[in-house]
Amino acid sequence: MIHMIEKIQAYLKDEQIDCAFLTSTENVTYTTGFRSDPHERWLAVYIPADGDAILICPGMEVEDARGAGWEGSIIGYSDTESPLELLKAGVSGFKRVAIEKNHLTVERLELFHQVFGECQVHAAEHMMNDMRVIKSDEEVTLLKKAAELADFAIETACSELEEGRTELEVLAKVEYELKKKGITEMSFSTMVLTGENASSPHGTPGDTRIKKGDLVLFDLGVVYKGYCSDITRTVAFGEISDQQQEIYKTVLKAEMTALEMVKPGVKSSDLDLAARKVIEDAGYGDYFPHRLGHGLGLNVHEYPSITSESDIVLKKGMTFTIEPGIYLPGVAGVRIEDDVLVTENGYETLTKFPKTLQTY
Amino acid sequence: MIHMIEKIQAYLKDEQIDCAFLTSTENVTYTTGFRSDPHERWLAVYIPADGDAILICPGMEVEDARGAGWEGSIIGYSDTESPLELLKAGVSGFKRVAIEKNHLTVERLELFHQVFGECQVHAAEHMMNDMRVIKSDEEVTLLKKAAELADFAIETACSELEEGRTELEVLAKVEYELKKKGITEMSFSTMVLTGENASSPHGTPGDTRIKKGDLVLFDLGVVYKGYCSDITRTVAFGEISDQQQEIYKTVLKAEMTALEMVKPGVKSSDLDLAARKVIEDAGYGDYFPHRLGHGLGLNVHEYPSITSESDIVLKKGMTFTIEPGIYLPGVAGVRIEDDVLVTENGYETLTKFPKTLQTY
Repeated sequence: MIHMIEKIQAYLKDEQIDCAFLTSTENVTYTTGFRSDPHERWLAVYIPADGDAILICPGMEVEDARGAGWEGSIIGYSDTESPLELLKAGVSGFKRVAIEKNHLTVERLELFHQVFGECQVHAAEHMMNDMRVIKSDEEVTLLKKAAELADFAIETACSELEEGRTELEVLAKVEYELKKKGITEMSFSTMVLTGENASSPHGTPGDTRIKKGDLVLFDLGVVYKGYCSDITRTVAFGEISDQQQEIYKTVLKAEMTALEMVKPGVKSSDLDLAARKVIEDAGYGDYFPHRLGHGLGLNVHEYPSITSESDIVLKKGMTFTIEPGIYLPGVAGVRIEDDVLVTENGYETLTKFPKTLQTY
Repeated sequence: MIHMIEKIQAYLKDEQIDCAFLTSTENVTYTTGFRSDPHERWLAVYIPADGDAILICPGMEVEDARGAGWEGSIIGYSDTESPLELLKAGVSGFKRVAIEKNHLTVERLELFHQVFGECQVHAAEHMMNDMRVIKSDEEVTLLKKAAELADFAIETACSELEEGRTELEVLAKVEYELKKKGITEMSFSTMVLTGENASSPHGTPGDTRIKKGDLVLFDLGVVYKGYCSDITRTVAFGEISDQQQEIYKTVLKAEMTALEMVKPGVKSSDLDLAARKVIEDAGYGDYFPHRLGHGLGLNVHEYPSITSESDIVLKKGMTFTIEPGIYLPGVAGVRIEDDVLVTENGYETLTKFPKTLQTY
């Protein structure tokens, strides 16, 4: 993590910013290796342009932070102490600070100014996005493990499909099996959607029962040591109609078309446009209402967004999802999503569950 | 929900504030009846001191908002539209606005100012706390249902206790059974802690196996139609030591002492002090390191905090937790927590699972 902090310090010096004060669980994990959800309490890392970084966390977590490998300074505070006052006592003044404007609340910034006085506030997002968008080998290893567990979850879900079972029953079994493997945190609310419910891009799992002739859509991901996976598969339960099959094939073709374009130097907008064209050419353009994908790492949705307008150029080490879908009310809801790594000459999909139509 | 909005309008007029702009899921639920987690998207309710409130939500959720009973104006926006610009087009200018300072991010407030120009920003928290602290009959009904499901979860957990099972296996089964009942959201990460692991107030469930002579601590809650429950029970697995029994009895006495003091007019700090005294008198004062309890409603932790310094006076309709604990490293971790409603002349516990020591 030391080299992350050095990179941030170089950036701060370039921009003539005195220090960074990072507060999100993800950026504290990224810079210190210590992952914690402090709920209402403060968690932060203070990084001066010159000098040593300081981790600020609840006193009862200090030992955990050491266990996670953080060897730098720590300010552990009790519930009756002000973490900002403790920090102030240990650092020199500053005039320009980079904060996470999309994480810090208005209330906390006011407190910050009360303690440190008025100072110029800059957004840290651009700097952090630039760093985090390229994954290290260690990060890729964790993302692969998270993807492997997502594959396992899809396998479990498929093996639980039975006539008359509800979406929630299948969902419950999937998360039960994951917990038995030690996974207690999902990337987002698991989706198991069937029939009509799957044909809305906005359905939520409920008491709908699985019946023959349905397409069943699973969208889920796990958090493994802080890193997220995100997979969608759509499978057939019993025999499905010709139109359902056509829609499935169209989505798969769109997904594969975008996937096979992935390599360093390609514009991300071209991926979205190519997948979208496949779906438009098949006559379903009005039924693909969302972006093609999103960056994936410590956050399940992170920089960059893969849209028809995103101008980011792919580089080796980027990881993101590709997930086209068609939602035709009353007929079918199909989405196919993989987690993708940009390699030296092309790509690797981290999620491996088969994409040829599976029937149960 | 109309009367909530009228109350807010009366407050705004009193304070000479032109409008409120509320953005948390909880306050949008409270004022409109529509509950949604918009993730990265905007969700808000605009309430002018005079005139009609407007709900702002993603376009694909408009139908759900109507289904939830919101009959007022709605601005539904697509991903290419700015919800703030759409709002601006529909309302007159304002100079003073109440926002949720502990929810709105610095980035979003900057956007807000870009669209609406500079305006005086006031905290909406005090107003919302004052209203939300007294629960209506409808809210109490939902809190009771949430508590009933928490009781069911504890029963399930106890029935799953077996020599050699891990904490995570028991946890997995509890959430599995809840999902089968339609509960997909817990109030917070479920805790199943046993032996040494329970004697840290900060343990997390893992691969520790249950063995004879252990105390097992469960801390969990469910979200039912937006309302949260939060229960802790500690049970014995096999025969426990005299000291473990003594600690259990002390915590139970502390809990009952505080509980029996609950009625309108009592200072909340007195509850904390009374429970703390029981534990201190028994010689365990150093091992009760947290507050007695916290308000409970749409948030699992909400106003008021029940500490030795909280000066709030209990009123009919308040709901909060009482949860003393003793954590003696290597010996025992015991906490007993109920959800409590202040009634006309006393109290009612919403959580009902037995508190005399249960042995499995």
